Amino acid sequence: MLHPVKIFPVFVLVVGCATSSPTPTASPVPESQICQLRKSHTILVHGGVGYRASEPQRELIEKSTAEAHRRLANGDTALNSVQVAIEIMEDSGLFNAGRAGTRTSKNTVELDASIMEGKTLQAGAVASVKDVKNPIRLARAVMEKTPHVLLVGEGASKFAEELGHEIVQPDYFVSGNFEKHDDHFGTVGAVALDRCGNLAAGTSTGGLYGKKPGRVGDSPIIGAGTYANNETVAVSGTGEGEKFIRSSAAARVSFILQYTNRSLKSAVNESLQNVVNLKGSGGLIAIDKKGNPVWATSGKEPMPIGYAQQNGEVKFKN
Amino acid sequence: MLHPVKIFPVFVLVVGCATSSPTPTASPVPESQICQLRKSHTILVHGGVGYRASEPQRELIEKSTAEAHRRLANGDTALNSVQVAIEIMEDSGLFNAGRAGTRTSKNTVELDASIMEGKTLQAGAVASVKDVKNPIRLARAVMEKTPHVLLVGEGASKFAEELGHEIVQPDYFVSGNFEKHDDHFGTVGAVALDRCGNLAAGTSTGGLYGKKPGRVGDSPIIGAGTYANNETVAVSGTGEGEKFIRSSAAARVSFILQYTNRSLKSAVNESLQNVVNLKGSGGLIAIDKKGNPVWATSGKEPMPIGYAQQNGEVKFKN
Repeated sequence: MLHPVKIFPVFVLVVGCATSSPTPTASPVPESQICQLRKSHTILVHGGVGYRASEPQRELIEKSTAEAHRRLANGDTALNSVQVAIEIMEDSGLFNAGRAGTRTSKNTVELDASIMEGKTLQAGAVASVKDVKNPIRLARAVMEKTPHVLLVGEGASKFAEELGHEIVQPDYFVSGNFEKHDDHFGTVGAVALDRCGNLAAGTSTGGLYGKKPGRVGDSPIIGAGTYANNETVAVSGTGEGEKFIRSSAAARVSFILQYTNRSLKSAVNESLQNVVNLKGSGGLIAIDKKGNPVWATSGKEPMPIGYAQQNGEVKFKN
Repeated sequence: MLHPVKIFPVFVLVVGCATSSPTPTASPVPESQICQLRKSHTILVHGGVGYRASEPQRELIEKSTAEAHRRLANGDTALNSVQVAIEIMEDSGLFNAGRAGTRTSKNTVELDASIMEGKTLQAGAVASVKDVKNPIRLARAVMEKTPHVLLVGEGASKFAEELGHEIVQPDYFVSGNFEKHDDHFGTVGAVALDRCGNLAAGTSTGGLYGKKPGRVGDSPIIGAGTYANNETVAVSGTGEGEKFIRSSAAARVSFILQYTNRSLKSAVNESLQNVVNLKGSGGLIAIDKKGNPVWATSGKEPMPIGYAQQNGEVKFKN
């Protein structure tokens, strides 16, 4: 910790925030990140719902959480932190996202992802992309380099090529053969509050195991699987995507906070209850504008999560 | 009118509702439509925002409204009514949907549509389909014949083929060449309340003029361009889709009604204000559970709409 705090947030005026050593996937800290650095920064990561993480999955969630936190501590943006956390999980081959994205009924891989920035309410998403290494990175590019929010299919892949994003061949994917039922688990997602008080959320997935080709779930749908608004909350969901879409699960958490006096915990639980009312199940992670992390599942399903608050201690729960 | 009402709704217990003479696109009235027939049935249709309708467009909106109302009056479902209203507009070649769907930057046509049923909160949507005559019909099939909500691209087209839906060749589309800037206007949408008290909403579009291939706007996104919930409201939107997605425009109307005591008019206006806050513009049509029709645009933009309430008189405004 650079600035130990005993009482309340210490404000340090900086001209531009320090960046962590850049990786190929990290964007430079934007000008907008010039702010009074607060110390309520928090990262909260999930690895899907409905299973117990293996030891390698647990280690990976902790690694992802630690790296995302390190960036936040150094003054990096919530957006970069969320992106990096998710890219680490996409690349791991341990979750149903990126490299280990699950198979469709035709044994293909079709990836979805989205990201949203709470300060500007800007958002980007991609769906049904078959050959892009890091869908979350492409989602961010849609947000920052186009006037659009959602690109799908070949159009999205073409855009990735134009940008020089890494394109992969079918043999890049390590997910199991659909017929053999030995697939990997777990959509991934992250929510973060940075030291400028900005929230961000992101989600990445291979979608539903054995899905019909072209099927898109909630992960790339802003308001369903992902939502962030500095005035309220950052949210990422995992579960039966169709039920999350039909109940506007992520946006509902924000709307409850905006239009009622209820707590974040209550808002998250009500949103999950709406998923249950549709005979669905799943989990949500959320951080409010004060950095309070909340996670819950619709029933007794386990959901592996990692989080770290200002002191940097990485905690894992499942 | 079969049952003239002077005071309040007349309830007539029927075993199954009468259907209008079926067309190839109409589904049979489902068992769930067995109800006490009320007389607050209303259909409200829009033809996009930001332009004055031509005389043929006006006539078409009136025709669509009248046919949808005829079905409602005969006891047909809000869902069928909305679907029929939109199919008539898709087939007309006069709006940016179906046959006259606008061109992408590559001069292709990519169509989006969604439909939602307020009673069950079931929903279906398709995006980025290039060869399906009636996207709204396919959206409904996604809702009723798959466990999914959203199918995109070739997967959606494949599904349409499997179902025997009409597939069209590129020369079916009459929309102008993108380079010549002579395109048609107007996303289309409809909301309805049927005589069983069920709400439905649907939207269909060719999307943004000159869009990047693969770009998907709000029309096929449940919660953004389309939303229906019997407890609150049915909503369809038109305008800058990205801003409707980022503000969860359609779902926001429902959430305001659910979580506050505000009026439908106030909820619609607040949702449009959130679009404006993102430097966007557009319009919304909505019907509440009592059959009150509301329409508004974010500024002074004209929006051609047609509606008919229980007495069957078709009104057009622009």
